[in-house]
Amino acid sequence: MEALGRQILVEFYDCDSDKINDVSFVESAFLEATRKSKATIISHNFHKFSPHGISGVVVIAESHVTIHSWPEYNYAAVDIFTCGDTIDPWVIQEYLKEAFESKNISSMEMKRGLFKVQPGQRLLFKPQKVSSN
Amino acid sequence: MEALGRQILVEFYDCDSDKINDVSFVESAFLEATRKSKATIISHNFHKFSPHGISGVVVIAESHVTIHSWPEYNYAAVDIFTCGDTIDPWVIQEYLKEAFESKNISSMEMKRGLFKVQPGQRLLFKPQKVSSN
Repeated sequence: MEALGRQILVEFYDCDSDKINDVSFVESAFLEATRKSKATIISHNFHKFSPHGISGVVVIAESHVTIHSWPEYNYAAVDIFTCGDTIDPWVIQEYLKEAFESKNISSMEMKRGLFKVQPGQRLLFKPQKVSSN
Repeated sequence: MEALGRQILVEFYDCDSDKINDVSFVESAFLEATRKSKATIISHNFHKFSPHGISGVVVIAESHVTIHSWPEYNYAAVDIFTCGDTIDPWVIQEYLKEAFESKNISSMEMKRGLFKVQPGQRLLFKPQKVSSN
């Protein structure tokens, strides 16, 4: 069996609450982390909630990276969904761990889209060209 | 232990490939499914890849719903990340199953952001008001 995608679900506990409540900071950190992973950024969209909390997504050619933060619990949930073999999703986790000053991380890696392939063949991953928005 | 969020990872296999390759159709289906679940839509962003495949996200006040489709494999990966108890995430799965004509689904529900709470207390979920974009 071979997988089309891999997805890392990261629980960032014991973060700096001010940092994960600062939408500009979080968006910049996400863009920088995504670039460092060699992903191709297609769009990004971050929102600040009142009185606190951030939701954000970076759509990449290789899938997506999302965040939901609860600064009141010093916690952020991050998903890193990737396909292909040119991107290193763990770079994103490591960059965000430093940025959020998280002292306690829990990660789980999932395989998405499992298919049986013939010997010598490979699954084709998503092409990187966006044809329309 | 109580969780801030719940996340349903859905594998839609054996879909109608034309439907999961039609970005307008997929976006409309996502918006309708999200409304039916009683979620509050904040933003949405869908992209079509060349020669095929779609990536899309709906950010909701209660977190997010995403899709990545591989029409060449009749497959779509959907994530439904929610918080609070006003939204029914399974409504989204059921609506999309019909829309994509998927004949084979695999779902997994995860809890995100686990915290110990005192007896009689509850975790506070994300407020629904967006203070800035």
